[in-house]
Amino acid sequence: MDLVVVMKSGAAADDVQRVVERVGELGLTPHTSRGEFRTIVGAVGEKTPELQQQLEQLPGVDHVMAITQPYRLASREFHEADTILDIRGVRIGGPHVNIIAGPCAIESREVLFSVGRAVKQAGAAILRGGAYKPRTSPYSFSGLGREGLELLQQAGAELGMPTITEVTDPRDVPVVCEFADILQIGARNMQNYNLLLEVGRTSKPVFIKRGLAASITELLMSAEYVLSQGNHRVMLCERGIRTFAEETRYTLDLSAVPVIQERSHLPVFVDPSHAAGKRDLVPALALAAIAAGAAGAIVEVHSCPDRALCDGPQAVLPARFTALMEQIRQVAAIVGHRVTQW
Amino acid sequence: MDLVVVMKSGAAADDVQRVVERVGELGLTPHTSRGEFRTIVGAVGEKTPELQQQLEQLPGVDHVMAITQPYRLASREFHEADTILDIRGVRIGGPHVNIIAGPCAIESREVLFSVGRAVKQAGAAILRGGAYKPRTSPYSFSGLGREGLELLQQAGAELGMPTITEVTDPRDVPVVCEFADILQIGARNMQNYNLLLEVGRTSKPVFIKRGLAASITELLMSAEYVLSQGNHRVMLCERGIRTFAEETRYTLDLSAVPVIQERSHLPVFVDPSHAAGKRDLVPALALAAIAAGAAGAIVEVHSCPDRALCDGPQAVLPARFTALMEQIRQVAAIVGHRVTQW
Amino acid sequence: MDLVVVMKSGAAADDVQRVVERVGELGLTPHTSRGEFRTIVGAVGEKTPELQQQLEQLPGVDHVMAITQPYRLASREFHEADTILDIRGVRIGGPHVNIIAGPCAIESREVLFSVGRAVKQAGAAILRGGAYKPRTSPYSFSGLGREGLELLQQAGAELGMPTITEVTDPRDVPVVCEFADILQIGARNMQNYNLLLEVGRTSKPVFIKRGLAASITELLMSAEYVLSQGNHRVMLCERGIRTFAEETRYTLDLSAVPVIQERSHLPVFVDPSHAAGKRDLVPALALAAIAAGAAGAIVEVHSCPDRALCDGPQAVLPARFTALMEQIRQVAAIVGHRVTQW
Amino acid sequence: MDLVVVMKSGAAADDVQRVVERVGELGLTPHTSRGEFRTIVGAVGEKTPELQQQLEQLPGVDHVMAITQPYRLASREFHEADTILDIRGVRIGGPHVNIIAGPCAIESREVLFSVGRAVKQAGAAILRGGAYKPRTSPYSFSGLGREGLELLQQAGAELGMPTITEVTDPRDVPVVCEFADILQIGARNMQNYNLLLEVGRTSKPVFIKRGLAASITELLMSAEYVLSQGNHRVMLCERGIRTFAEETRYTLDLSAVPVIQERSHLPVFVDPSHAAGKRDLVPALALAAIAAGAAGAIVEVHSCPDRALCDGPQAVLPARFTALMEQIRQVAAIVGHRVTQW
Repeated sequence: MDLVVVMKSGAAADDVQRVVERVGELGLTPHTSRGEFRTIVGAVGEKTPELQQQLEQLPGVDHVMAITQPYRLASREFHEADTILDIRGVRIGGPHVNIIAGPCAIESREVLFSVGRAVKQAGAAILRGGAYKPRTSPYSFSGLGREGLELLQQAGAELGMPTITEVTDPRDVPVVCEFADILQIGARNMQNYNLLLEVGRTSKPVFIKRGLAASITELLMSAEYVLSQGNHRVMLCERGIRTFAEETRYTLDLSAVPVIQERSHLPVFVDPSHAAGKRDLVPALALAAIAAGAAGAIVEVHSCPDRALCDGPQAVLPARFTALMEQIRQVAAIVGHRVTQW
Repeated sequence: MDLVVVMKSGAAADDVQRVVERVGELGLTPHTSRGEFRTIVGAVGEKTPELQQQLEQLPGVDHVMAITQPYRLASREFHEADTILDIRGVRIGGPHVNIIAGPCAIESREVLFSVGRAVKQAGAAILRGGAYKPRTSPYSFSGLGREGLELLQQAGAELGMPTITEVTDPRDVPVVCEFADILQIGARNMQNYNLLLEVGRTSKPVFIKRGLAASITELLMSAEYVLSQGNHRVMLCERGIRTFAEETRYTLDLSAVPVIQERSHLPVFVDPSHAAGKRDLVPALALAAIAAGAAGAIVEVHSCPDRALCDGPQAVLPARFTALMEQIRQVAAIVGHRVTQW
Repeated sequence: MDLVVVMKSGAAADDVQRVVERVGELGLTPHTSRGEFRTIVGAVGEKTPELQQQLEQLPGVDHVMAITQPYRLASREFHEADTILDIRGVRIGGPHVNIIAGPCAIESREVLFSVGRAVKQAGAAILRGGAYKPRTSPYSFSGLGREGLELLQQAGAELGMPTITEVTDPRDVPVVCEFADILQIGARNMQNYNLLLEVGRTSKPVFIKRGLAASITELLMSAEYVLSQGNHRVMLCERGIRTFAEETRYTLDLSAVPVIQERSHLPVFVDPSHAAGKRDLVPALALAAIAAGAAGAIVEVHSCPDRALCDGPQAVLPARFTALMEQIRQVAAIVGHRVTQW
Repeated sequence: MDLVVVMKSGAAADDVQRVVERVGELGLTPHTSRGEFRTIVGAVGEKTPELQQQLEQLPGVDHVMAITQPYRLASREFHEADTILDIRGVRIGGPHVNIIAGPCAIESREVLFSVGRAVKQAGAAILRGGAYKPRTSPYSFSGLGREGLELLQQAGAELGMPTITEVTDPRDVPVVCEFADILQIGARNMQNYNLLLEVGRTSKPVFIKRGLAASITELLMSAEYVLSQGNHRVMLCERGIRTFAEETRYTLDLSAVPVIQERSHLPVFVDPSHAAGKRDLVPALALAAIAAGAAGAIVEVHSCPDRALCDGPQAVLPARFTALMEQIRQVAAIVGHRVTQW
């Protein structure tokens, strides 16, 4: 039973009959149950969001409840076991914990390589760095573009690390695919559906960050967009939602980790850096994420954050990152996970 | 004085000195004031978000406060008088109140023209209709695309109404410019910066909806993206924000109307349909918007909403819309505005 | 049918049987419907929140949906017509619009009487003034207590206006009843259940403000607490909720007005002063509230707000209030309401 | 410098002069700095919230920024070292991690004692159980009152555990003090200021839960209420805030732990049970809390949760709690803390 149409308490028999007919007309099978105060009509079959909206408007209908989730390919019901990805030898998901680290933006060859070497040595598995930076202000540094991608590719090759970078425009998908190993969809683009369709048509793994105001269902629907195009290598990332709490940049919703794991087979990462907005909070939140069972964390590291062109305040220093990695390894073991070793 | 750097209560003289030097190095002029418990350093000059972030990280700094807003071209300080647009003879902004109406999506010639005629007759000034619909589910109807744009152009021409439609992809900007009079940036794309830059380079007026989790400052920064490209014809629209309140689809933040009017010269519309998500709430919220001083409202109208392919539950029937227009005219007059007459 | 128990897709026949038995054991009548993928069990009868929680935990149960609202006496189903109160000759609810005005706190005889005379002359129906002020800081002015109540009573008597004042402690209910006509429950006490029970046992009308994070259902449940004690004279008030929006003190949720009117027979007021926190926004929001169909507004007025001991920035000056009253009268008429005349 | 008054860009010299005079009149020392576009006036000295509000309203003033936090006794500046409490031999705060466990409500002697024995054996340090339950519905079970308190005292004595229970009414403070070791202020009463003052006048330690919509500053201000009465034994508890996220009951804001630790010397606990609302999420969130450095967690445990009269769905079973305690011990050690041993 996919939909339950709840009639108003005073609904006429005619109203119920009309709902039953419409359910049939929409290709679903109706089941009517009469309660003491209310009648409900179940509607069994394939449903689309439109059907629910249309039934809600019929005379005598109080509300319509969906019984099943609107996503399919992203659901545990569709694919029961954890999805485990293999990206250039790095295994992601299931019991594997992977830390993605690097500078927020790729600013220069020097910073990228020095931070890259430091995080690699500390045990990070994947190298991050932004070449296209969505910025609130048109007057801010917005990334080096193609030149940044080339630097990232060189750093990944030299360090032997897969690379991840954000793509913000459907027109940039080919060039990003050429240089990077993982395509990141940022929080502000989680519902940029044309971009999702475009990355869904590539063969690159896709890392989708939860939007600032997105529900978990909506995040899974964005994954569904990518999956529906035949690209099954999708990772999700909780990065903080916007709430009234003003002491941090965003509110990290760590319960998203076990909730998504219950509903979906896709690996769930956590981004403590963007959530907190302040480096002093990052280690506590990164450890909390691993303790909550996350597939990993994406952490911004910078060798000279007070000169960074983007989000310096949330970048941790390489030495602090190294100490954090040691704690992450230990916490992962306690919850039955293991950090990919180098 | 653009930034105020607040030192920690125990900050050393060296720390203060370092801040003063860095302020100078960044091209700003420092002013130091010593309080009983704290020292503050003012920094006068052109600032970018990066500067603030960099100063925040220096030793001994507690926090840095920005004194001026980050937008310029969108501000009242830059342009004191209300911006008044003229779009094919329809005057928007200042004392003018304009109602934009039509179906959510363009589904068929028949529905579009019949709804168009009804809203025109009732007094709507601008015809709306979506050809590219961003939908949460990849399995939902996503619009007729170019065919829809052609229908919209024909309806606008026949009815003598300027038209507005959403553009969701930078690659679609040329075709939408060819067929529509106003380019709408939807809530989910408010921070799709490449799209904003693209519409900023056209000569078409742009109608930007506030994102579900966007602050008013962020909405004005999105306007700044368009303005910075030389396109000065920008309208803003409050359409409801995401909050814990679950009884409506979103929470309409009507205080955005007077707040934006105080800070910016750009016209502010209100979208009661998407905010409420239920047609019974639309008239009350539309009237409230006009009473609050909005430049107009954008209202979804459908002749047969329980067959609509998109957002039927929030569409009002033509007869209800006609009655609402009459009340809107009266309320506008009370607050010193006037509805463009036909 | 009061509850719908949705079984998991793979639930065993035994699980369904156990739910059916438990429903019966809890005194409800079970109705089982088998869908293509899921079985649902309806449970008809009187339910309490406990029952729903208990059923949710049985093996094989996916979730339980409540079909009916948890409030009874506050609902339109229980009492279809608008409740209209008569408080010392002032009629509240239905088509009547009443403006409650006065200073935030009662600071002195002089301010209270001068503001009272001004708002009376402008057309306010009810005089407000706080004697017990809940303040975030223990170092803030917290009201004159009993002395303030006496002043309020004298002002009400002299001006011929009913009075309203906040009660924050169950121990203060008798003294507040002695001096004031309407007992206000502030937002921070909306879920102070012992206080609600205490005022429910008096014969005074009760004015309940929505909590900062309260859903409309929770607001109606707080009304239910008062109603359940036999006190049927309850008014509700939307006063802004806490959201991420930082440009105003709170986000006024005006859709609460039509939503509550649909679900409940109780009059709904709006408090634009506390929502906005800034006087310049108050007139726009007050007019919007009346346009949305509210039963009235509660507005803070002060003759010398930059000397006020509490919330001066949101108090409007008497002259501005007088102009606002004139607009309120006109807007009320447009939506079929009328301001009580003096 | 405690306040910074930012003048509008076009403020007249007279306006600045008036601010300077008013600052002096309010007992603060003014410091004027003239920037390129704006003048600012610093105000040094003791400030109250009123002063800030009053200055904001003077002509030519754009806004007023507070440089120092409004709490004093709760701040790290006032008391630099972590506060460590000793409650009947249990040491709380600093490096000590303590788990508080027990049923949500005290329903019967049998359940309380059996759960108490189980959690004691698993390693919980403090026994919880509610005798006065604030419930959304007036028709829900609201606790056994004094009888419950007696049972709790007996269980604590028999098991050798200090006890904690909620007090919801100032009139109940004496009886709760008679029977329990720790007074809990629930989230809905965090701003019940008379209750805070009343518990501040006792000699019992107070455990304050963050309100559903309370900022961290407001939580610390509530602690300040208790501290200001001379009771210095205060603990704080993050228990989830209300956000748009609907997949969990509330959104646990774990960043509150390091943020509060930075600002205050008081111990910070976490309540994963109420935040999640579902037992399957509790272990992940409890471990995350300890990994984030919390002083402990308060966990609801029930031997037969599908018969519980209150919040059964979030109670973990004793066996699961025992396994969780083992993981908590290990995670605590990794972050340099230790669980009080039994």
